[in-house]
Amino acid sequence: MADMMEFSYVPPDQIVGNSAFVPDGDERNHLARALRKKPGDSVHFVDGEGWIYEGVLVRMKPEVEIEILDRRRDGEGGSAEVTLVPSLLKGPRLDTVVEKATELGVAGIIPMRSSRTVAGGGEPGGQRLERWRRIALSAMKQSLRARLPLIVPVMSLQEVVGTASSYDLALIASEEERGTGPALTSCLVVEARRILLMIGPEGGFAREELDMAREAGMQSVSLGRSRLRADTASIAGLALLMAALDSA
Amino acid sequence: MADMMEFSYVPPDQIVGNSAFVPDGDERNHLARALRKKPGDSVHFVDGEGWIYEGVLVRMKPEVEIEILDRRRDGEGGSAEVTLVPSLLKGPRLDTVVEKATELGVAGIIPMRSSRTVAGGGEPGGQRLERWRRIALSAMKQSLRARLPLIVPVMSLQEVVGTASSYDLALIASEEERGTGPALTSCLVVEARRILLMIGPEGGFAREELDMAREAGMQSVSLGRSRLRADTASIAGLALLMAALDSA
Repeated sequence: MADMMEFSYVPPDQIVGNSAFVPDGDERNHLARALRKKPGDSVHFVDGEGWIYEGVLVRMKPEVEIEILDRRRDGEGGSAEVTLVPSLLKGPRLDTVVEKATELGVAGIIPMRSSRTVAGGGEPGGQRLERWRRIALSAMKQSLRARLPLIVPVMSLQEVVGTASSYDLALIASEEERGTGPALTSCLVVEARRILLMIGPEGGFAREELDMAREAGMQSVSLGRSRLRADTASIAGLALLMAALDSA
Repeated sequence: MADMMEFSYVPPDQIVGNSAFVPDGDERNHLARALRKKPGDSVHFVDGEGWIYEGVLVRMKPEVEIEILDRRRDGEGGSAEVTLVPSLLKGPRLDTVVEKATELGVAGIIPMRSSRTVAGGGEPGGQRLERWRRIALSAMKQSLRARLPLIVPVMSLQEVVGTASSYDLALIASEEERGTGPALTSCLVVEARRILLMIGPEGGFAREELDMAREAGMQSVSLGRSRLRADTASIAGLALLMAALDSA
């Protein structure tokens, strides 16, 4: 089974010299119960910052300690850093986007509010953010990635557009611009190291919002001729972008 | 709102000359309640076989009748026909694949059982198939597509491999072959009209299964360097394939 190897996660501040300490809670339980690790067993873990560690379990009590034997940089992500900006979506659709985006290797996720996004119900923002971070953590471990995407609290479109100039390439894909702009191919992304990919909400962007984004230097891209839901557009767009970066 | 226009669905056998009759049930209720259509209103509908119709609602009772004013072939799908073969997955993950695959424009979906698939719980096969067809119907209308993917009952890997030679190109993407085979680009798909895309289960294919597929002429493709869950691989693979066909 491909799932037999799985990463554990140890926050960077719990790694001291050649020792790593697994905090009580989910991670500890997972090591003990799901993976059935005992002292002397070898363990792989990541710190969410791009390092993969190999170690041996020293003791389970009173705290879980791992002796680090080796660590290496995760080479999978290539050198580019992609930040995905999905619009807020109703129900669990953004949860799915967070999971898939983590598997596909994004460096960051900025959930965005624009004039036509449908607010996410009565759920408090902090609770939602916590859930997304848990989903990303689980997806990171499952997909043997070493990098935990940074998920920031919801930003407005204005705020995100304001950061566009700090990226090498800031892309925007939205329903009302479908078929306009170049395709997401390797020619488009060549030489770009920091890339922002903004995806429109279910109802599309307002005209002024698109104008504002374009004035800030953002570039429309086409995700093909299909009319995709916003969550599908995020996943398909990332798949195309990562493939383009792979072959750039 | 981009969602203001939505297709209704009329099965082809309910279209007679210039009249279309909407069967009682979901479609009728949707027209009356969600879209609030009244006699005299214009209506767009599809027959699931690639035609888009424009008409005017003649009457709601005793049955819904639409007078057809115009019909045209849906040009969006291009000329290629893609059949997706996802492996059976636990829980609602295959539901998501069916929805996204319909948006991305597949012609057919063959849910597949292989030696390592985890059977889908106690749910009877017929019930599951009905649910997938409802999901596809809804996704077709939402995404303004005219083509309803044909979803067939679950087949075994042996059965699917047996049909491989009837496609111009039969592709296989699986976790244990990650990074092998050419990327899913336009060079690979050029000239192919009928394409099969088979995606491995969560636990991967068995060695004998991969050998059998290869002997039948199936070709491994790479979906990039990321380790993707099976459902993500289906969606990402289709996104890459459709983009490749668009630009072929």
